[in-house]
Amino acid sequence: MNRSLPPHGFPNSEFETRLSLFQRIMREHRLDGVFVTTPQNFRYFTGFASQFWESPTRPWFAILPLEGAPITVIPAIGVDVMATTWVKDIRSWPAPVPEDDGVSLLAEALRSLPRRFGRIGAEIGREMSLRMPVSDYLKLPALLPGIELVDGSPAIWDARMIKTDAEVERIRTACQIACDSYDAVPEIVTRGMTEREAVQAVRVEATKRGIDAIPFMPGVSGPGGVSQIVAGPADRILATGDILFIDTGMTYDGYFCDFDRNFAVGTLDAACAKAHEAVWQATEAGIAAVRPGVTTEDLWRVMSAALEAAGALGNSAGRLGHGLGLQLTEPPSHREGDRTAIREGMVLTIEPGMEYAPGKTIVHEENIVVRAGGAELLTRRAPRELPIIR
Amino acid sequence: MNRSLPPHGFPNSEFETRLSLFQRIMREHRLDGVFVTTPQNFRYFTGFASQFWESPTRPWFAILPLEGAPITVIPAIGVDVMATTWVKDIRSWPAPVPEDDGVSLLAEALRSLPRRFGRIGAEIGREMSLRMPVSDYLKLPALLPGIELVDGSPAIWDARMIKTDAEVERIRTACQIACDSYDAVPEIVTRGMTEREAVQAVRVEATKRGIDAIPFMPGVSGPGGVSQIVAGPADRILATGDILFIDTGMTYDGYFCDFDRNFAVGTLDAACAKAHEAVWQATEAGIAAVRPGVTTEDLWRVMSAALEAAGALGNSAGRLGHGLGLQLTEPPSHREGDRTAIREGMVLTIEPGMEYAPGKTIVHEENIVVRAGGAELLTRRAPRELPIIR
Repeated sequence: MNRSLPPHGFPNSEFETRLSLFQRIMREHRLDGVFVTTPQNFRYFTGFASQFWESPTRPWFAILPLEGAPITVIPAIGVDVMATTWVKDIRSWPAPVPEDDGVSLLAEALRSLPRRFGRIGAEIGREMSLRMPVSDYLKLPALLPGIELVDGSPAIWDARMIKTDAEVERIRTACQIACDSYDAVPEIVTRGMTEREAVQAVRVEATKRGIDAIPFMPGVSGPGGVSQIVAGPADRILATGDILFIDTGMTYDGYFCDFDRNFAVGTLDAACAKAHEAVWQATEAGIAAVRPGVTTEDLWRVMSAALEAAGALGNSAGRLGHGLGLQLTEPPSHREGDRTAIREGMVLTIEPGMEYAPGKTIVHEENIVVRAGGAELLTRRAPRELPIIR
Repeated sequence: MNRSLPPHGFPNSEFETRLSLFQRIMREHRLDGVFVTTPQNFRYFTGFASQFWESPTRPWFAILPLEGAPITVIPAIGVDVMATTWVKDIRSWPAPVPEDDGVSLLAEALRSLPRRFGRIGAEIGREMSLRMPVSDYLKLPALLPGIELVDGSPAIWDARMIKTDAEVERIRTACQIACDSYDAVPEIVTRGMTEREAVQAVRVEATKRGIDAIPFMPGVSGPGGVSQIVAGPADRILATGDILFIDTGMTYDGYFCDFDRNFAVGTLDAACAKAHEAVWQATEAGIAAVRPGVTTEDLWRVMSAALEAAGALGNSAGRLGHGLGLQLTEPPSHREGDRTAIREGMVLTIEPGMEYAPGKTIVHEENIVVRAGGAELLTRRAPRELPIIR
């Protein structure tokens, strides 16, 4: 294992900074507070790191008030660990209690917040799911007289979209471990292995290199390109002329990388090499276009133009990149009609892809952080020539 | 890698059987249909297997009608893979489209269902979260005149709680790989490693043995027992006298195991050995008590009595076991006041634990399937004597 990796965990000051920034954002959004229920939002604001979220049985709540310190309302099983974080106000119940799984405790805490705007935000908007039974959420209005529950997602994304230096370092670490693991592919994957075996070999490699978890690692192969990037790996055997596409979201200290790599099995035909070069160039163009002040649509347009010039038949992804951080994909999206301004501190994928012949798709992806002068790569740039699996 | 493991995927007949059973259940629950949005429910009914759910950006919908075939309403990026499943009615839009991310298509499909009860179920109840923005869900009533949206979770759990033979075989495979990996611990983990390194070694072992994914593997250590089982692994170094507790939910073909193992580092003191024996015996008692017709509360009572007789100081988990399957934890819960009848085909954890001295907790866990004659173990029973890490 690798003891040279950066330590896990953040100092309390990181969370103080995050909350203080978020309180300014809540004021702009006219919110007296926001309550969060999902692992990523809970972790972002409290520092509570646990795999226990994998069990959907018990809801957890953190309340971020417009002023003052956070409050958590959590299952009794979590109290000891919660007490090791910077959060001091910890309320609990002996969950699971189906009759009232934290709902009245949550409502009581929300009622106690000072009223200024009469509005409290919840995770009910874009790219968020509420991690509590909706039927419990729907009980809240009656328990919160005079308080309007509104969409808190835009405020949360306003905060989370801009990464702190400490967050960027976690994402960089995940990217570096994934890069090193991808680089090992020509040594650890061979023709005759199945997609599944190839992916397992990369999982082993990344785990040995110190990654914490690998929530996402599809692997797909096909002659000269892949027909989809949504499913897999399967038991298809890698054969000469195939492209093997592996994508991954691995986490280090909770933070994701999200990028893919392509490999040629045995040989590479001319049409595929040409498409690969075109998508590699579209990635270059996307990276070069990044700077504070341009929009996500601008990035989409630059990459899209490069792909169209190369004869792209289409792309069903609906976008050519997105944000990432505590989640594999986060706002914004590089797509037509999305005019989100690119800002310093955003961490983004640059992800052009195209179907270059029917059923043959090539997708490239890099992860960058936006700096004043433009994009800083967090991944090592994919090799211009496709690596060969023997 | 291991090519002797069972193949992935189910024949169409598996899904036909599931839907036909679910249609009988929907009739009992007076539902004209149920729509599902979460990876597990979507996979359970359609067979669509993908890691793409890790991206929270795009909602996916499957509609199970009271009569006839399922309908899916999904992002364009998923259509090609969806077409490989048994589902033939596939509708799509070029997601992400924040202005209308599938909501009108979903409503149109729901409106087209024959009306018998005027009620459609959604995943808004216990141990479920809706995987779509709640603000979009709240638009549905206006789009569904004459249709009442109700809690579909009880109907879904009625179906999923009873596993088919094919499901049990997946869980058994996950259990066996996890057992083999735990058995390797005394060879692959040594004193002086950190908790994190120990867990990484077990992750590598399980991946080499052919597990698909490891969404859950906490690891905690402490002198004579652990103080919590919610967080970890951390950088604590394993030292003589420690207990190392590792828990895992690994998946094979989408299905989880969920059980832990304890290891003594170097030596084992008498008090800890005695507590270990007591919890081992409580597990025996729990397993022996399983048979169709007893209740979850009966199982809780048997284990609880054994733990109290052994001098338990308490247990903050709120229950002593639960169901499992496509999720790490599923209904029912073995807890006081929960009188769910145990039925043939349920897959359950038997999970007694106790604090035997302040800050020293021992938890055991096995996975079983309920047969007519009682429990059939899916895990190999934990050794009665704690394995020693040298």
